[in-house]
Amino acid sequence: MTTPRRANVIGLGLIGGSIALALRERGWWVAGDDIDPRRAALAHERGVVDATGLAPDVEITFVAVPVLALTGQVERALTGTAGVVTDVGSVKSAVCEVCDDPRFVGGHPMAGSELDGLDGADPAMFQGAVWVLTPVAHSDDTTFAAVAQVVASLGAEVVGLSPARHDELVAVVSHVPHLTAATLMGLAADRSEEHAALLRLAAGGFRDMTRIASGAPEIWLDICSENRGAITGALDALIAGLGEIRRVIDGDDRAGLHDRLARARDARANLPSRITDPSSLVEFRIPIPDRPGAAAEVFTLAAELGVNIANFEVVHLAESNRGLAVVLVDADIAERFRGGLIARSFRPSVAPLS
Amino acid sequence: MTTPRRANVIGLGLIGGSIALALRERGWWVAGDDIDPRRAALAHERGVVDATGLAPDVEITFVAVPVLALTGQVERALTGTAGVVTDVGSVKSAVCEVCDDPRFVGGHPMAGSELDGLDGADPAMFQGAVWVLTPVAHSDDTTFAAVAQVVASLGAEVVGLSPARHDELVAVVSHVPHLTAATLMGLAADRSEEHAALLRLAAGGFRDMTRIASGAPEIWLDICSENRGAITGALDALIAGLGEIRRVIDGDDRAGLHDRLARARDARANLPSRITDPSSLVEFRIPIPDRPGAAAEVFTLAAELGVNIANFEVVHLAESNRGLAVVLVDADIAERFRGGLIARSFRPSVAPLS
Repeated sequence: MTTPRRANVIGLGLIGGSIALALRERGWWVAGDDIDPRRAALAHERGVVDATGLAPDVEITFVAVPVLALTGQVERALTGTAGVVTDVGSVKSAVCEVCDDPRFVGGHPMAGSELDGLDGADPAMFQGAVWVLTPVAHSDDTTFAAVAQVVASLGAEVVGLSPARHDELVAVVSHVPHLTAATLMGLAADRSEEHAALLRLAAGGFRDMTRIASGAPEIWLDICSENRGAITGALDALIAGLGEIRRVIDGDDRAGLHDRLARARDARANLPSRITDPSSLVEFRIPIPDRPGAAAEVFTLAAELGVNIANFEVVHLAESNRGLAVVLVDADIAERFRGGLIARSFRPSVAPLS
Repeated sequence: MTTPRRANVIGLGLIGGSIALALRERGWWVAGDDIDPRRAALAHERGVVDATGLAPDVEITFVAVPVLALTGQVERALTGTAGVVTDVGSVKSAVCEVCDDPRFVGGHPMAGSELDGLDGADPAMFQGAVWVLTPVAHSDDTTFAAVAQVVASLGAEVVGLSPARHDELVAVVSHVPHLTAATLMGLAADRSEEHAALLRLAAGGFRDMTRIASGAPEIWLDICSENRGAITGALDALIAGLGEIRRVIDGDDRAGLHDRLARARDARANLPSRITDPSSLVEFRIPIPDRPGAAAEVFTLAAELGVNIANFEVVHLAESNRGLAVVLVDADIAERFRGGLIARSFRPSVAPLS
């Protein structure tokens, strides 16, 4: 009988509950903590966690609390436990700037559900989802590698980005789409006061587009406050784009309209799929140089180059204190990835996975 | 053996093919015509239609061709057949103005699919969908009643609206959402040229919101051209709404943001459901007065009042030449509907459906 690996989860909502369930499914012992002791007790009762409270002797602590509470709870986990700490907040710049401990690396799983809270928790939530990690200069390489290994073991695909870059990108693919759905829904609601038939005309497309507007407003207040700059920037770009398409339609510029719609259709069709054909994978073995942040750099580079890392592990080299990253990527982008690694003084060896 | 009822379908794409299949499933004989004779032959070969071409001796002809071709094909059906004629175009003002024959009434089923053309045709497509009919002063009452009866028999819920009102409402719930999805997708595609990781961060919400941008651009050129006024008006309202939410976020006005998001969530939660509990239905029996458009008026009134007509038929009164509309509506809005009917000099009798 081996001793189970141990983790804490602070904040037992939808994401925290899902992490706890996913870890327990993989044999971990999990302690769960929540600002509301009744919620922690309920999670324990339902078998979502093995114990309540914050256990000091754990490998890893996940902080899954609202954005504005992140910093305080990350600091508490760093003080109260010996292991590495990560969070799951939707905005990364502030927490990554304040929590400058080498045992912390920020994170954000791009997953969710229409359900709220512990009731929606699902151990399969991260299967095939992208999980962004945001290492910075002061994050330790072993911290990054440890968090990335656990996250990947939950079925997620790790993407490394700087906190500022993450915040800028989620403004475009998550925050502004949410605000747009709410605005469209509000517009339809305004008009429906005059024309009761309007909402009955809302077919599948409108329902799809406004689905995310059914989420709880509360979490969005913090997100909009913390990521204000990136969100207003992306809103400006959207407003400008809508103004442009309005001008194209008003001028009956059919060629211009066709170009825009065809480009959008092509981009939609090319949204990256999460399914990787294992027969097309190539194995990279990358010795991690002895400099801060080098392991994280492999991931950040992959993200910049659009390289999908299908799997990875960091193994310890017997003859030295240094690590070796073993990374699987799609064959068709292997050459691009190899070039990028060499340009950054990595020395990868590459072999097809047979 | 009874003689089957007979129909034409002109235009054998997604909607036309689905209408043909749905009619045949209900025992109709259907002739199918298409600008492309190979497509008509293929539809015949696959058993979507019983014959190719336009049969003169039919009860009803459905015109399911692109918006700009509607008028010509409706006129052709009126000239070449003896029955009633309806169309399924997404914009209604132009065709309803030009085709001023008492045997024609415009229509628009609010249904579709991500699939294109005959391959996506599905006899169940209209089950539970709203099908707008747009009677005007010159549409004959018996035309309206005949088309509404057939459409309802395909499982659709008939909503009566004036052509201009229809066009204004679909700009808000269909056309502008489509253009917004394309603009959002284009914005993400622009940014992804710089940051290859961006599209990998696109989770379920973004995929939901941009799904409709994967449609064929061609049909949208005609729609935007024909419904230009309503679309630019709704785009202006959306741009103004996004500008407002931008100001709220930029000023960190949490109460203002909460109000907007909560209102959108509530409106989304209250989108009319298509499921009606039969035990809560009330039967209206409405003698149709002898004045033009009176049967259509029952539907237009119901739409204005937000009354969901679960089922209806027009029966012939033996003692006169006039009709009797038998209409089922939800009990909780029965009183509102009754008041509206009486105010417009209808004389309904009302009884719960036991």
